[in-house]
Parts: sequence; C-alpha cells; structure tokens
Amino acid sequence: MKPDTIIELNHGAGGSLMDTFLKSLLGIYQTKSIGGGIGVDELDDGATIPLSGNQTLIISSDSHTIDPIFFPGGDLGMLAAVGTINDVVMMGAKPIAITCALLIEEGTIYSTVEKILSSFAQVCEENNVAIIAGDTKVLPKGQVDRMYMSTTGIGLRQSPNIIGDNQIKVGDKIILTGPAGLHGASLIARREGINLQTELESDVAPLVKMLLPIAETGAVHAMKDPTRGGLGSALNEFAEKSGVGLLLEEEHIPIHPEVNGICELLGLDIYSLSSEGKAIMAVEAEKADDILKEICKDPSGQEARIIGEAIDKYHGKVVMRTTIGGHRLLRKSLGEPIPRVC
Amino acid sequence: MKPDTIIELNHGAGGSLMDTFLKSLLGIYQTKSIGGGIGVDELDDGATIPLSGNQTLIISSDSHTIDPIFFPGGDLGMLAAVGTINDVVMMGAKPIAITCALLIEEGTIYSTVEKILSSFAQVCEENNVAIIAGDTKVLPKGQVDRMYMSTTGIGLRQSPNIIGDNQIKVGDKIILTGPAGLHGASLIARREGINLQTELESDVAPLVKMLLPIAETGAVHAMKDPTRGGLGSALNEFAEKSGVGLLLEEEHIPIHPEVNGICELLGLDIYSLSSEGKAIMAVEAEKADDILKEICKDPSGQEARIIGEAIDKYHGKVVMRTTIGGHRLLRKSLGEPIPRVC
Repeated sequence: MKPDTIIELNHGAGGSLMDTFLKSLLGIYQTKSIGGGIGVDELDDGATIPLSGNQTLIISSDSHTIDPIFFPGGDLGMLAAVGTINDVVMMGAKPIAITCALLIEEGTIYSTVEKILSSFAQVCEENNVAIIAGDTKVLPKGQVDRMYMSTTGIGLRQSPNIIGDNQIKVGDKIILTGPAGLHGASLIARREGINLQTELESDVAPLVKMLLPIAETGAVHAMKDPTRGGLGSALNEFAEKSGVGLLLEEEHIPIHPEVNGICELLGLDIYSLSSEGKAIMAVEAEKADDILKEICKDPSGQEARIIGEAIDKYHGKVVMRTTIGGHRLLRKSLGEPIPRVC
Repeated sequence: MKPDTIIELNHGAGGSLMDTFLKSLLGIYQTKSIGGGIGVDELDDGATIPLSGNQTLIISSDSHTIDPIFFPGGDLGMLAAVGTINDVVMMGAKPIAITCALLIEEGTIYSTVEKILSSFAQVCEENNVAIIAGDTKVLPKGQVDRMYMSTTGIGLRQSPNIIGDNQIKVGDKIILTGPAGLHGASLIARREGINLQTELESDVAPLVKMLLPIAETGAVHAMKDPTRGGLGSALNEFAEKSGVGLLLEEEHIPIHPEVNGICELLGLDIYSLSSEGKAIMAVEAEKADDILKEICKDPSGQEARIIGEAIDKYHGKVVMRTTIGGHRLLRKSLGEPIPRVC
C-alpha cells in the first residue's frame, strides 16, 4: 500500500480491501512462524507451535470492539469468549486457556464491566477454558468507545492430522452448520431500528462440543467460522488457499426468512453478513453424511446442510449454482456492510 | 466494588485503586489457572502452563495505548514488543513468539502504521521472537485514539526452578538494573513541554540478553519490571506476595538528575514513575555480587545497584532508609501521575 493511503473502515471489514491492507502489514514482519508451524502469513484462524510428543499448541488472537456492547442474543463478553474459543476449535484443537486484555473508557459504570465479564467467564467455564492472564487499561473519555476486549486463546491438539484452510481436496463436501448471516443481520436490524415481527438474534455460540469430537476423527480437512466478511469471504479463502474450486448449490444454503427480509429491505448481500456460531467445513466425501448426522444432533446444528463440494475446475474461485439454474461467481465481499460487528 | 462505582483513570494506573478494581474483576472469573500453574489471580507478569518433560509454557498479555504513539526514545510498536517480551523474561522464560492485535482509527495514514509495525518487528527479530498471529480492526473516527496494540507473548522455560513474585526469601538481595523512572519522566516532560538541557529519553529496551542467562542459573527468586505504578508498586508487590519485608537504602537507588529535577518541578513521586527497560530482582545473597557484575557488563545495566534486601521484619511492607538516616514506608502509589504511559 502507498505510504499516504488513508486507512478506511473497509480496510478492517473482512473483504478484499482488508486483504490488500493485511498483505502490506504482513510484509513488514520478518519471522512469522515457528518450528514449521502455521504462522501469521497463512491468515488462518490461529497459529500453531509444534511441541514434543506429537502435540501441537494453537494460539489465536482477536480484538473485540462490537457496538453496541449489549446486543440481541449476547454481549461483548460472550462474543469475546465465543469468538476466540471457536477460532481454536477451527484449528482442530481443544481450547484450554484464554487471556483477556480490557480497554475501558473512563466514566464507565462498574456494573457494566461486571456484566460483560460475567458473560465472558460463563462461556469460558462452560467450555472448560481457564482465564489465566490479563491486562486492564482505563483510557480517558472519548479515547475508547466504552469497552474493548483483546483475547488470546490457547489450545492443544493431540492428533497428528492437520486442519487448515489449505488442506481441502477435490471431492471434499462443504458443510455449513446452520443458517447464514444471523449475527450480522441482527446487529444491522438493531442499529437501523427495524421492527421485526419475530425477534432476530445473534447466533453467537461456542462450537467446542459440537465440532471438536468430529474434528478429532481426521475426516475434517478444513474448518472456518464465517465471521467478518461472512460466508463469501470464508469460502473464497478456502478456495484460494487450497487451490480448488468450490461449487455451491444456492438452494441448499440455509437462510432464515428474517435475514432474507433484512437483506432485501436494505439491499445487502447476505453472503457478506457474519455468523458467530456457525462453521463451514470441508470433509471427506464418503464421511460427509455421517458427519452431517452428528452435527444435526446438536441443538445449534439442526439446520446444517451440505452446501457444495470442492471440484477440479474454477481453481481458487467459488461458483454458485443459483436457484434458477444459472451459475454465478461468489466474490469476496469488499467489506462488511457495517463495521464493529465483532 | 459497588455496582454503581464510576471507573476512573486511576483504576487502571498501577496503584492501590487499581488493586481494588482488579480484585473485583478477578472475583468474577471462575477457573483462573491450569494444571497447577500460575494463573491470573497471582497478578504476576505472566501465566504458566506446565507441559510434559519439565517444560513450562509462559503466556503474558498486554494492551499498549501510549499517548503520544511516537515519544522520545521509542514508539508504540517498540514499546509493545519490549513490554511483552520483558514480561516473559521476568518469568524466567525465553520468549519465542508473539501475537499482535491492532486497533486503528479510521483516517490514520498508512505510513504511520507502517512505522509503528516496523519498530515492533525489529525488536521481535532482534530477540528471535516470531510474530505468529494477529488481528486488525479499523474503528470509526473518535472511537480509538490513533492506534492501540494488544500483544500476547509466548515463552518456554526449560529449567525447573520457579521465578515468581512470591518466591523471595529472607536474606535475598534486591537489585535494580538501572536508574528509576526514566520512561515515565520522559513522557511527562514531553507532555508538559518542559525544555531540558539534556534530552531525556524513555529507557524502553528488551531485557532478554541481559537477564535470561542469569535467570536460568536458578539464583534469581523473583523478577519484575517496574512499569505501571513504578518502583513503589513493584517492590510492594514483592513484599506482599512473598510475605517478607524489604529494607531499601535510598542512597543506593540510581536516579538521573534530570528525573529528579522533573519530580521536584512538578511535585511528583519518583517511585511512582514507570520504567520500560529495567528490572528489580530478588537474588540469593551469596550470589548477588556476581550477578551484579554480570548485569553491569551489559550496556543498559551499567548503573545497576544492590538497593536493599529482604528481611524478617515489616512483613509485607517496603521500608526505605533515607539519605538523612531516617526510615520511611514506601507505599504503593495511588496511581501513575499520568495515564497512558504504556
């Protein structure tokens, strides 16, 4: 990027502008991985550090700056814990510990901080994740918007199989574990003051119990939670990094009618809206049906579907067979339609 | 803390108000350590996770929000790398990797981000620390002040000896590796526009090469870098956590005349000013002189001194024998005189 480029919101919104920005930033760093593990260059959900005895350590870092800090279906604390825990799970690892650095705006009421951290602690406790370290900074009024949380998740993977965005093989089936875009749509609805007949809520939820046993079988080649940039960005990353084409069946992609309605009303691309409790998975074809059955047993996986497959064509691209029988390219979104969704 | 307490700057400034705040926050968390390691409750420089084969993993998290982001002697990127690397070293571990989550204000010029991250990368590279993971968020104008960095350092300790704030034994000598308060004083001077005859600079510097070989000998019982809250807070934590008294010789504490001058001019307590490239260490008495000699060989350790010892009296307190022969209690400061020094 040119030195005098002005950083815009879309440079952090999960789309193609962010890709350009991140590539520039990563060019500044020098040593970016350790012991042959996955490093920051891979832009995966986390990094890996090989340990002795076939163990792998997983490290995943995130900042959470969602606005508003209390939203339908969750709050900042819940999102911070879920987001980081899920990133560790997406690498096929059991999350064991988390750290939490808080930025708090001067003038915030203690009970607000207490509520947010209680949510954070509850998610961690329910998923057997210890909160082992942290940092707390209070900033002058106006230099932070109420409260941000930066978290680092630590996980251990015992199995030697590698799960990574670049591990997808031709023939793999693509599973989406539930309806797309609920988190993003619920936040937009809330901010735009759209009054819906049913209460649309964020899908923020940890995926440890649903996905970790499946990931440990070795049949999962890649997993990703479609957060910033939504399904469009996540699927394109799969295709680009693995060098395969992805052919999707649009009619198989689970979408809630309320989310559809909001997208039509506001002219939004549903595939750019984020989820915070869903995963896309590339799995061995012959095991796909069994895996789908397992996922559907989980309360938050009941609407999971096989939405497509990896093919030896359209390499690095995502192509959607539309409901009217045509084909269209699903591009990475330019950015999330609204910032601060995560 | 009462639910309706309004969070003030001093709740994050490293002194006794911060202690109260942190105790409340830690009361919200449930599982706070893992496998018998040091957890968040200990408020040490980092947490430990015991691994197989006598290895220990060290994890340390920090947010860096310094204002201004370019200051005499360094910048935000340098501070973020140094601060986190030093925290890992303070636990007696070799820093191997770091993660970096960026919060950037919309409208920031790319070259600013580039400069900051170049400093960050340079410190990491010089200390053999790989930048393995990260996150980048761009926030709307006014919701972050230019740029904050949240970092997590990962270290490995091979030796079985424990270094921790609670490991100090009566008779241990206390070493300070150089003059106190340079970082805090230089920032105050810059902000207050004080024109000094000599250019006072932050002491921000990594301590890996100077202190890691010494820490690995087993003769160091506790180490701490006196950042937020300065020497007063760090020494009081030593005394409280180890249950010993600390008797200091005021005339042995190295202080630069410029720092003294600024403190007199502005009525500041020098022992509340932060350092970013110094350590206090509690070491075995009979090895103290040898350790001091080793430290003095390092360019940034030439002014190191033995400043006192741990005694079986004044338990949990820090007492200073003043230059005029009296004794006074060195209390934990209420907070850093200025916020956003780290």
